[in-house]
Amino acid sequence: MEYPELSENRAFRIKELKRFFYPDTVAVIGATANPKKNGYSIMYNLKNFFEGRAVPVNPNYKELFGSPCYADVGDIPHEVDLAIVIVPAEKVFAVLRQCKESGIGSVLIESAGFAEAGTYGTALQKQIKDYASENDIRIWGPNCTGIVNTDNMLVTPFIYMPELKDNLGKAVGNVAIVAQSGMMAAGFMAQVLQSGYFGVSKACTIGNKVDIDEADIVNYLAIDENTRVITMYLESISSGRDFMASIRAAMKTKPVIMLKSGRTPDAKRAASSHTASLAGDSDIIDGFINQTGVIRVDDFIELVRTGMVFEKHPEPFKCATSTGREIAVVTVSGAAGVVACDILNSKGLNIAKFESRTKEALKRVFPPWMEPLNPVDTWPSIELHGVSETFLKCMRAVMPDPNVDGVLMMPFTANTDFHFPYDEISELVNEYDKPVVSWVFGDVRKFPEYFDNFGKRGICCFEEMKHCVDALNAYLSYSAFRRSTDSV
Amino acid sequence: MEYPELSENRAFRIKELKRFFYPDTVAVIGATANPKKNGYSIMYNLKNFFEGRAVPVNPNYKELFGSPCYADVGDIPHEVDLAIVIVPAEKVFAVLRQCKESGIGSVLIESAGFAEAGTYGTALQKQIKDYASENDIRIWGPNCTGIVNTDNMLVTPFIYMPELKDNLGKAVGNVAIVAQSGMMAAGFMAQVLQSGYFGVSKACTIGNKVDIDEADIVNYLAIDENTRVITMYLESISSGRDFMASIRAAMKTKPVIMLKSGRTPDAKRAASSHTASLAGDSDIIDGFINQTGVIRVDDFIELVRTGMVFEKHPEPFKCATSTGREIAVVTVSGAAGVVACDILNSKGLNIAKFESRTKEALKRVFPPWMEPLNPVDTWPSIELHGVSETFLKCMRAVMPDPNVDGVLMMPFTANTDFHFPYDEISELVNEYDKPVVSWVFGDVRKFPEYFDNFGKRGICCFEEMKHCVDALNAYLSYSAFRRSTDSV
Repeated sequence: MEYPELSENRAFRIKELKRFFYPDTVAVIGATANPKKNGYSIMYNLKNFFEGRAVPVNPNYKELFGSPCYADVGDIPHEVDLAIVIVPAEKVFAVLRQCKESGIGSVLIESAGFAEAGTYGTALQKQIKDYASENDIRIWGPNCTGIVNTDNMLVTPFIYMPELKDNLGKAVGNVAIVAQSGMMAAGFMAQVLQSGYFGVSKACTIGNKVDIDEADIVNYLAIDENTRVITMYLESISSGRDFMASIRAAMKTKPVIMLKSGRTPDAKRAASSHTASLAGDSDIIDGFINQTGVIRVDDFIELVRTGMVFEKHPEPFKCATSTGREIAVVTVSGAAGVVACDILNSKGLNIAKFESRTKEALKRVFPPWMEPLNPVDTWPSIELHGVSETFLKCMRAVMPDPNVDGVLMMPFTANTDFHFPYDEISELVNEYDKPVVSWVFGDVRKFPEYFDNFGKRGICCFEEMKHCVDALNAYLSYSAFRRSTDSV
Repeated sequence: MEYPELSENRAFRIKELKRFFYPDTVAVIGATANPKKNGYSIMYNLKNFFEGRAVPVNPNYKELFGSPCYADVGDIPHEVDLAIVIVPAEKVFAVLRQCKESGIGSVLIESAGFAEAGTYGTALQKQIKDYASENDIRIWGPNCTGIVNTDNMLVTPFIYMPELKDNLGKAVGNVAIVAQSGMMAAGFMAQVLQSGYFGVSKACTIGNKVDIDEADIVNYLAIDENTRVITMYLESISSGRDFMASIRAAMKTKPVIMLKSGRTPDAKRAASSHTASLAGDSDIIDGFINQTGVIRVDDFIELVRTGMVFEKHPEPFKCATSTGREIAVVTVSGAAGVVACDILNSKGLNIAKFESRTKEALKRVFPPWMEPLNPVDTWPSIELHGVSETFLKCMRAVMPDPNVDGVLMMPFTANTDFHFPYDEISELVNEYDKPVVSWVFGDVRKFPEYFDNFGKRGICCFEEMKHCVDALNAYLSYSAFRRSTDSV
């Protein structure tokens, strides 16, 4: 993968980030046997999950978690790839110097009490920032929980996560998540890992960003083989130009979904008191970010839902038409079709005009009196052919249409024997390379079966029609963006 | 209750509707022993649920469901309050004449095959409409499933619902739901009854509306003591003027929530082919409806979610400010506060400016360096006082503020012992008569406990922040409407 738009410095840093994600040996400076302290949780998580070696550092212990404990990183007899720092803020600078003297060039600082905590913390932060910059040390943080890498089970957060013991394996997947700082990042990350919204490749909280920033992370995730989708929640952008270049580069191979708040006047005011960001800058950066084709969302749950949507299908679809936004609606209920038109239109998606071949095909399914229109109302045909047969025939009629970019499919689940042509519809998606998203209503006891059967075939289903339309919109927007950049 | 705006005729019809909802004896014309037919399901449902008497009518049987079966309604030796008709469309007119001759003035026609099914059906429909009008018979339908009244367990739908046997009792509540016709209405109604989104008072599908229409139903539900909230899904409006008067009258005592599709050009086109409604009329009626203060929604699940919101608190709140739209945000995460501002502003809600007394109260909770702003960032205080104490103190500071109309409360659930001041916060809602809605994040295993504890105290909680803001918006919009009409 090439990064024509990245500066030489940024391109170079990508290699350095690998030491954070794939260390062999990690030193935990501030490890402790006191389970109330963060240094305990970090050691606990590493000892229980990490496939590499975790070495505790604390002058008060000879041994911790069954391993020899060292007074100073310099005493560790192995090469250390990554130092995790969890000592009080005022002691971090001294630790950083010890790391430098011991030849450790990658330091993850989880300690809080820096710029987020007032004037004194800001001074401490400047001190470590300057030192790292002068000595070419890569720093991740401070004020963050760091990394969860499900590829080597590196789990650095100071959140005590015993529940992951049986579940981390299940959390493995191809969606990366990046969150900036504070309570939200830590709590949200724990919620994502615990809930199984999607399978996670790498989860990162990046904190105060004295050195490594969101642009570095995106650059790294762009080349990470385990990551096919990138979801981000950001409060501020460190370097607008570099970040834009990173997003553009990443979007060439994988979708990037972003929750970046601070759009309205009240939100800007709140953001400026929260992160000391400047509203004016934020407006300009926002405008630039939108040009990168990134998929924007407004809410945390919308962020994970959109991650789930792309997890099911990370590749762009074909885009049959010039707008790339023409939808066929195949519905068991004419009324639901009307509601769908309202929602599709409100999100800038159009109701496709079928070509004559499609209309002929639909006429062969419909009773004679019925006109072949879009939305395709399947009910009168279901009385003739049954649900499964009718939906399959209608889907086979509309999917090949060159005026159709995607399909919103809306059947109902009957309370008697419910069969649906899951395989055949999934084959249509692959054959014509167009997204199908499904809303469903009726017997709720059948919903899990329906959702699972389509979910494992890469087709999204939602109980809320708006979520279906959001998914189609996300797929088609990303596909159109990829079409525009791939052809450049 | 008075209806100053209703025409004399409409006001009179309210009394007549009672026979549909509260019959003592129901005749089922078209009852059958064949479980594949709708006439079987209707009898099954009535026999298993209805507290009154259900009498089968079908010349082919002497007995059905353990009751004597009559060849003609005229043969029934009891007074019949309601006739349910489920014979083929072309036989309905003859049945209607028999009803008239037997002195039955209330007829629910569930049979399909009328205006929704082409020219012949339209002619059949006109015939029964004219007959009913000339003979002053009240007709409900045709092409509908009728009524579920959880007060007397009248269950008329032709959907076979054995699963309700153990569950109908649990479905009892104070929310009425009205849906127009077809697949959607029948399936959606079954989904609502089955899912327990909210407790149902009366569920009605009204079909082709040859006589009784949505205005009649709203008028009836407005005076129904078991109904405190009305949710409606409509495709077309029969009489715009009467319907507006009905909504206005109903909104004086209970919130009315409406999904009425057909707003965008594509949706209007789809609606006109689906219900033969005229787009131009729809625009005019839509405009009028919005003036009634009715709460509009865009999606089926949004309709039930909004029903759930008002089920928790059907009465209007106080509205402290002149806008009635000033929100205090009390959050464990500054970042979540910024996101909340964006979403609140995008829905036309403002971030309240606290009066000085509130600021002083917050200063007593906050660490000394922290400014008392809205959103109220509780995190630094939690480190001093703990989650429960901090949230309670902050809520007690903001709830009395005369510049605050409602509160968005956003704590996190910790993975250790989680306590929250459920009772105390619920008391604040009652004392200050302002809505509190909660978003929550963190340990998902604690969510059910949190949701249940607030839910049973009448406070809505959602995992999606937008849903919280929608709930606040719905509460405050309805409260402002009630303030404007109550003071007239």
